[in-house]
Amino acid sequence: MARQERAIRTRRTILEAAAAVFDERGYTSATIGEILDRAGVTKGALYFHFGSKEELAVGVFEEQLAITLPPQSSKLQELVDSGLVLARRLRSEPLVRASVGLALDQGAMDLDRTPAFRMWFDQNVQRLADAQAQGELLPHVDVAETAELLVGSFSGVQLLSQLRCQRRDLERRVVVMFEHFLPSIAVPAVLARLDISVGRAERVLAQGRVEQGAAVPAQASSGT
Amino acid sequence: MARQERAIRTRRTILEAAAAVFDERGYTSATIGEILDRAGVTKGALYFHFGSKEELAVGVFEEQLAITLPPQSSKLQELVDSGLVLARRLRSEPLVRASVGLALDQGAMDLDRTPAFRMWFDQNVQRLADAQAQGELLPHVDVAETAELLVGSFSGVQLLSQLRCQRRDLERRVVVMFEHFLPSIAVPAVLARLDISVGRAERVLAQGRVEQGAAVPAQASSGT
Repeated sequence: MARQERAIRTRRTILEAAAAVFDERGYTSATIGEILDRAGVTKGALYFHFGSKEELAVGVFEEQLAITLPPQSSKLQELVDSGLVLARRLRSEPLVRASVGLALDQGAMDLDRTPAFRMWFDQNVQRLADAQAQGELLPHVDVAETAELLVGSFSGVQLLSQLRCQRRDLERRVVVMFEHFLPSIAVPAVLARLDISVGRAERVLAQGRVEQGAAVPAQASSGT
Repeated sequence: MARQERAIRTRRTILEAAAAVFDERGYTSATIGEILDRAGVTKGALYFHFGSKEELAVGVFEEQLAITLPPQSSKLQELVDSGLVLARRLRSEPLVRASVGLALDQGAMDLDRTPAFRMWFDQNVQRLADAQAQGELLPHVDVAETAELLVGSFSGVQLLSQLRCQRRDLERRVVVMFEHFLPSIAVPAVLARLDISVGRAERVLAQGRVEQGAAVPAQASSGT
């Protein structure tokens, strides 16, 4: 294994261990020692990648957004794809689940949770601004307000889905969310062409695997 | 003071104490003893109103919805009013804040938090079904799906507002939420007449106080 590839794997192992420990014990109670035990790596290896418990949390946050999806001619379709794929990954990838759990953990008083939402917000702003630039948005849309609403709504929708049925219906709920939002922001000609269906995420991930090979993690399509 | 009035006040004192203790210590760590100390009532008085810690939690949940707003000719306007007034009360009433905090407390493993969302969902279903019956909704609307989306979105929007700025901009965020949702569910003639403004909650509460006297608690309009 090349050195760089090994470093990427070690980093991922540490993040998965940190996510699992944060998930089980809560951020505040979790210790670096427990994360080391879980990951089975040396202290030196961990500190090579992450300088502190807080940096580990930021790494877990970033993982939620660290996926490259196939580009689409409609930027609103990319926005929809990112939401549906996140819903899919929340069900299949423990690391993504831990990332959202950490961002919403009200007990983590000593952790600044705003970066998690800020990064997600920035990504939505970028997609909406691109959509605006190519004429996909209705004239009155305020990109920042819509981006912030999407982040807030998605957070609450997934929380309710978790409470009601362990997120089994999450993709359907995210479809309902987009069905309610998009008519207020998309020009009709774009709206008519958007694919906002429950099976969309699976197809996008499969397309991504064909086009990009290892860039889309294989576990994104496994699980329930 | 009449006996019934005294009982209502005692019940409210106990609920406020329970809400404060749940808020500070978390539901799981909170004890009936602490709630008694805080409320300054006898054990007998508490158990007359609430049989257990869980019943206290349900009482706190109910308080979030226990407000009668002035009826409107448009049932969608009533839906909007209830959302905007809840946003207003979340900022001004500690008991309402504790109620939402308890519903979203992921650490409260031993508490069934679904009733909180179920009651809120039922209220939204009722308002949407009434709106549908009098022709206010577009034909494709699925009342249950829209009601559930509203509960989820509102929960996430208030959570993000809390994280970003201690809910200072919550009313504005709820306005943005309704502005994005309503064009997808309301017939245009109704949509054009809806008042979805930041100042709406204040006016509705004032109207309620004039019409109903003590039925709308005075503290709903106090605070920041």
